[in-house]
Amino acid sequence: MTEHAPATGQAFGVAVIGYSFMGRAHSNAWRNVGAFYPDVPGVRMQTLVGRDGAAVTAAAAELGWADAATDWREVIERDDIDIVDVCTPGHLHAEVALAALAAGKHVLVEKPLANTVADCERLVAAAAADGAGRVMLGHNYRRVPALALARDLIAQGRIGEVRQVRLAYLQDWLADAEAPMTWRLRKETAGSGVLGDLGSHAVDQLHFLLGEPVSAVRGELRTFVTERPGEGDDGALEQVTVDDAAWATLHTPSGVVASLEVSRMATGRKNSLMIEVYGTAGSIRFDLERLNELEVCEVGDGPAQGSTRVLVTEADQPYVGAWWPPGHIVGWDSTFTSQAADFLRAIGTGAQIHPSFADGLAVQRVLAAIETSSAGGGIPVDVAP
Amino acid sequence: MTEHAPATGQAFGVAVIGYSFMGRAHSNAWRNVGAFYPDVPGVRMQTLVGRDGAAVTAAAAELGWADAATDWREVIERDDIDIVDVCTPGHLHAEVALAALAAGKHVLVEKPLANTVADCERLVAAAAADGAGRVMLGHNYRRVPALALARDLIAQGRIGEVRQVRLAYLQDWLADAEAPMTWRLRKETAGSGVLGDLGSHAVDQLHFLLGEPVSAVRGELRTFVTERPGEGDDGALEQVTVDDAAWATLHTPSGVVASLEVSRMATGRKNSLMIEVYGTAGSIRFDLERLNELEVCEVGDGPAQGSTRVLVTEADQPYVGAWWPPGHIVGWDSTFTSQAADFLRAIGTGAQIHPSFADGLAVQRVLAAIETSSAGGGIPVDVAP
Amino acid sequence: MTEHAPATGQAFGVAVIGYSFMGRAHSNAWRNVGAFYPDVPGVRMQTLVGRDGAAVTAAAAELGWADAATDWREVIERDDIDIVDVCTPGHLHAEVALAALAAGKHVLVEKPLANTVADCERLVAAAAADGAGRVMLGHNYRRVPALALARDLIAQGRIGEVRQVRLAYLQDWLADAEAPMTWRLRKETAGSGVLGDLGSHAVDQLHFLLGEPVSAVRGELRTFVTERPGEGDDGALEQVTVDDAAWATLHTPSGVVASLEVSRMATGRKNSLMIEVYGTAGSIRFDLERLNELEVCEVGDGPAQGSTRVLVTEADQPYVGAWWPPGHIVGWDSTFTSQAADFLRAIGTGAQIHPSFADGLAVQRVLAAIETSSAGGGIPVDVAP
Amino acid sequence: MTEHAPATGQAFGVAVIGYSFMGRAHSNAWRNVGAFYPDVPGVRMQTLVGRDGAAVTAAAAELGWADAATDWREVIERDDIDIVDVCTPGHLHAEVALAALAAGKHVLVEKPLANTVADCERLVAAAAADGAGRVMLGHNYRRVPALALARDLIAQGRIGEVRQVRLAYLQDWLADAEAPMTWRLRKETAGSGVLGDLGSHAVDQLHFLLGEPVSAVRGELRTFVTERPGEGDDGALEQVTVDDAAWATLHTPSGVVASLEVSRMATGRKNSLMIEVYGTAGSIRFDLERLNELEVCEVGDGPAQGSTRVLVTEADQPYVGAWWPPGHIVGWDSTFTSQAADFLRAIGTGAQIHPSFADGLAVQRVLAAIETSSAGGGIPVDVAP
Repeated sequence: MTEHAPATGQAFGVAVIGYSFMGRAHSNAWRNVGAFYPDVPGVRMQTLVGRDGAAVTAAAAELGWADAATDWREVIERDDIDIVDVCTPGHLHAEVALAALAAGKHVLVEKPLANTVADCERLVAAAAADGAGRVMLGHNYRRVPALALARDLIAQGRIGEVRQVRLAYLQDWLADAEAPMTWRLRKETAGSGVLGDLGSHAVDQLHFLLGEPVSAVRGELRTFVTERPGEGDDGALEQVTVDDAAWATLHTPSGVVASLEVSRMATGRKNSLMIEVYGTAGSIRFDLERLNELEVCEVGDGPAQGSTRVLVTEADQPYVGAWWPPGHIVGWDSTFTSQAADFLRAIGTGAQIHPSFADGLAVQRVLAAIETSSAGGGIPVDVAP
Repeated sequence: MTEHAPATGQAFGVAVIGYSFMGRAHSNAWRNVGAFYPDVPGVRMQTLVGRDGAAVTAAAAELGWADAATDWREVIERDDIDIVDVCTPGHLHAEVALAALAAGKHVLVEKPLANTVADCERLVAAAAADGAGRVMLGHNYRRVPALALARDLIAQGRIGEVRQVRLAYLQDWLADAEAPMTWRLRKETAGSGVLGDLGSHAVDQLHFLLGEPVSAVRGELRTFVTERPGEGDDGALEQVTVDDAAWATLHTPSGVVASLEVSRMATGRKNSLMIEVYGTAGSIRFDLERLNELEVCEVGDGPAQGSTRVLVTEADQPYVGAWWPPGHIVGWDSTFTSQAADFLRAIGTGAQIHPSFADGLAVQRVLAAIETSSAGGGIPVDVAP
Repeated sequence: MTEHAPATGQAFGVAVIGYSFMGRAHSNAWRNVGAFYPDVPGVRMQTLVGRDGAAVTAAAAELGWADAATDWREVIERDDIDIVDVCTPGHLHAEVALAALAAGKHVLVEKPLANTVADCERLVAAAAADGAGRVMLGHNYRRVPALALARDLIAQGRIGEVRQVRLAYLQDWLADAEAPMTWRLRKETAGSGVLGDLGSHAVDQLHFLLGEPVSAVRGELRTFVTERPGEGDDGALEQVTVDDAAWATLHTPSGVVASLEVSRMATGRKNSLMIEVYGTAGSIRFDLERLNELEVCEVGDGPAQGSTRVLVTEADQPYVGAWWPPGHIVGWDSTFTSQAADFLRAIGTGAQIHPSFADGLAVQRVLAAIETSSAGGGIPVDVAP
Repeated sequence: MTEHAPATGQAFGVAVIGYSFMGRAHSNAWRNVGAFYPDVPGVRMQTLVGRDGAAVTAAAAELGWADAATDWREVIERDDIDIVDVCTPGHLHAEVALAALAAGKHVLVEKPLANTVADCERLVAAAAADGAGRVMLGHNYRRVPALALARDLIAQGRIGEVRQVRLAYLQDWLADAEAPMTWRLRKETAGSGVLGDLGSHAVDQLHFLLGEPVSAVRGELRTFVTERPGEGDDGALEQVTVDDAAWATLHTPSGVVASLEVSRMATGRKNSLMIEVYGTAGSIRFDLERLNELEVCEVGDGPAQGSTRVLVTEADQPYVGAWWPPGHIVGWDSTFTSQAADFLRAIGTGAQIHPSFADGLAVQRVLAAIETSSAGGGIPVDVAP
């Protein structure tokens, strides 16, 4: 892996492409990773890239970057850049990431890996090429301490053999029918609606927690509000061309059945990714709005059985030992910092790191199968292996 | 309605057919209805009916009945019986209830109305006949104060127009694969598995809360444990022939989509009927394990928005004014007492009472459609109107 | 104990003195005890006693009593009365109970045992006399299944040695300063304010859970609203002469420290008796507004430590086996029914039953010591042994 | 304020004195403040100061400091240092802060302001001197968004006039009697036990939320475990000379009564600062273990009254607009970043900033009064004005 050693001095030079919501969250991670994870290779926050020169220059100064740039193609070729972190809108992920891999860089791609299965496949192939840098997909919820703990407990058999899973990701930012049209509600720019945006997180968690991919689905998509105020001055309504709610059942080869429900219309739910895993000997429950907690039920003897609320802030639990003392909770942003740490460690050691591009492809195939099922009236659809 | 006046003195004579779990719960209601609802017509706890003479005699003494009997046909003809309350296993509901109606009695039938749509239709027809007594179906959860309040709030438009509903009814008494075979797990005796047992409650609540029946469904049934220890001495396994988990999406004419998930395998869930109703201007959440509480979210202005936990024990809330002061919670059994009160009041006034037999038929048709959909691979199925 | 056998036939004849809130709650218990606890001696609901003849006659009919009466002295002498259940206002408890004991009856007294320590001592002496009937004090929360379980767990050492307890009983029915004057707010009729009314429950629970009485206290009483609208037509304000909030620390001989806070001004709290017990190896938490639940924390190894929410509805937990299947919660009223069952069982066997009159005296001494401490500016006061 | 302009270029040079728990938390704040609050004056992370040269050098590199030093006296005189942030153990606060003020620096002092009232008074005087820099005390919980919201709601009269407050701060890190002796358990080094460490947070919150200082107290201190394994090899036990639990009632001039309970022995509680404020028209509840949430009860009309769980992540709520979208929770560390932002803004504008040194003195006086009361057996003690 010598060819991937830092180009300059001891620290890996990073460029983040994109500076809106995800660019900010990733910048925060790069700025803090060394403080919380001093054991991983160091980084140099080199370049923030965006299309609007003035805006990206201002953002770079705020967020702690050494410089800013507007041409990502140029940046990924620079010698002082070792890691390219792709935070653009999803339809640009494939192009940027492929170019960065071709330029010999390590590449982190924010989810989704890409908007289409075909693009995902191209990325998986590129990442597997000889001499390619380390790659990682930014499903940051794999670094929620409570979910990493959940995975460990399941892998240890603490809840027995899993049978039934309930997945829901509910938000309400589109519940107001007067909320205006955006690019996220047009098929051509967004690719998908809530299924791709939130469903992808839920499906990735299922794969992560079970260690097994979904093999067959039934699904149903729905657009509750089909027209919204357009962006023009004439007040004309514009057609919404993506889903704002979706339902599915997901089957795995070992016989697990998971239900999935996602919505942007769930009034009162702000960011509620709820996961319930029922096994033969226990169960686990989680809600992202209380991401420092995990409810764990283990079947046992005696009169004090029930579900235990675990405040996941102890040093022997995943990630949190790097943060604060027990009872001092971490924020949503911590997941990106821990993700960056794992990526840097993998770069340092050359070891595999999850989620891989193949993991992203697996999610995309499940989402595609759900769309196929929905289009067919809810028929069962196998997921391409 | 003079023909339905009490046969003897001022109180209506009641016979309950069946004395196991539901017979006990209904006996409790008849024993207490006068104390909590002194305004409704009085009752006389006359006869408890069961097949085992010694056992039913003992039960009658315990539960407060004047006498016991083993022949329900004889009992329903007696002049001192005005109300027949059918608490037998489901496959006997139709026969007993039809005979009681023919005998000119008021009839309360524990849910399900009957195991088949055809039987339900016969019962609806009989209840609609000239001169028939008052009838009621025992979906007791309609008398949970919090759910009656939920219905009121929805009817008043407090959460706007309903779009999306989430229904789940989760238990875990079959999570242990070594739990033995029972009549409830055989198709011929039970008719259905968890879908009929628990799903019926959830579907009835949906109808109750929305005031609108389900018109189309997609469904999927699953039996996680397909063989269980039989009742013979040879230790042979016996085939489980009903579902132990089920999933569906339910559609209404006005465009509401409800998801439904029921399970007897949800380790850690004892009796968790969870209902979430999302409207354009608010939402409502409920869990039967905390049946004195309702969570209500109403969209508003200002910085203190969220979901309000309402402890439904105030005098101006449904039913609870008849019980105890604020903060003194009612038990699961109270729902049967309030149900009996509503039934007696309807008998007294001759007014319609819900849930009617037609409400029971509507639920049964939805369940049948879910089974049809599941058998067809999850295809959409219209519910017979 | 033959002299205490039922006077007539096989069932013990019961008279309840008082028919308002507590009279209703106790009537409910006598009406239902045989159905839930068929193993205990039977009862005959004979006489309900009250001062207003017409009202008590109506109440008796509603609540299931055979007859009604207005002269309690006459009733307690009757041969068909075996058990006298005293539900009058507190200042009459001693007189009625002493007379009933003198008449050779079994006596159940609703809490408080009496308004003064001196009266309590007289009652303890009377109950200890040769040939006295069985006596019991109606601290019904000892029959909350979750609290009975808590006591068992503590007695088994599941949370180690107890060090620190937090007791609070918060209501809000006097938070409105315009709420009118009542007899409960006058020292001469009520004896005490919130300390006696709610604090007594909390102190009794402490004694119950620890099995050890309080030996020293510091206390502080407060009347937030000192004048309220009087009952006259002239709109004149009347002085409130009892406390509406109180605080104390309670010490036991073994070194436990308990804090106590009671209030009728805690806006938003309806009936919240909150108990937290911290031991060397675990802790327990309870809230009466969710009385079917207990939170139990046991110190252990491994990454899934926390507090377990136990839904106390399992057959192997105290009392609930007599009620409904798992997950079917009991109401506040169930505690009186279970209390009646324990009392009847004690009558049948002649065994000791708690809480005894001595337990009531112990509580009263603690409350008196708190008042003494408060009057002295919060000085430490020993509780008379 | 020109004399306090940044010494070098446009950004204020910061030195943090101390690099353990609090030094890390403050470093995190300085590293991130510019990214979340780009509107405030910029900072340059110049120097981290500690006694162990090698260790502080390593820490400085990890945490993002330009350099490290071991002599704080030298550092505070340097021209490239504008802000001195004191994170030493409490008994050194006064000396360092006084010197920094004398050197003309802006000074942030981590709580407690100092271990003694006398030292606090000296600091207040120094901060009030002509030409002194801006000062601030690090009671970071004033920057918990939910608590800042609570203060706003109270100030707006949303819960009416406050009457009763319940404060508890419970941890369990000393529940194990075998946990070894540390400097925190010796009077001479720690000054105080749990009262000073945790009680100070609770008292400051009371002052913050009410806008009114405590004027009289009654208090009681307790050491549950009086001996612990010493640090020597001989296994000898050493005397614990500070409190590990404490109780108090706190009175304000306007008549509010607050109870206070703090403990390091509350098994199962990790970092639970619980605050309940009861007013004439509503109430507010908070728990630091769920610091993104606030429960708000406002008395109103209609059948849906209760306590509203507010997820404090909306842009119109305090601080959180600077962080992430709704539903994306912040961590405990965010409070230090927001604190730094407020301090920098105050430096820039010259405006007053809370908590001031006088606020710290007020807290220290309350704690001292509680100790005096406890020493006197719980007698009432006035707080020096």
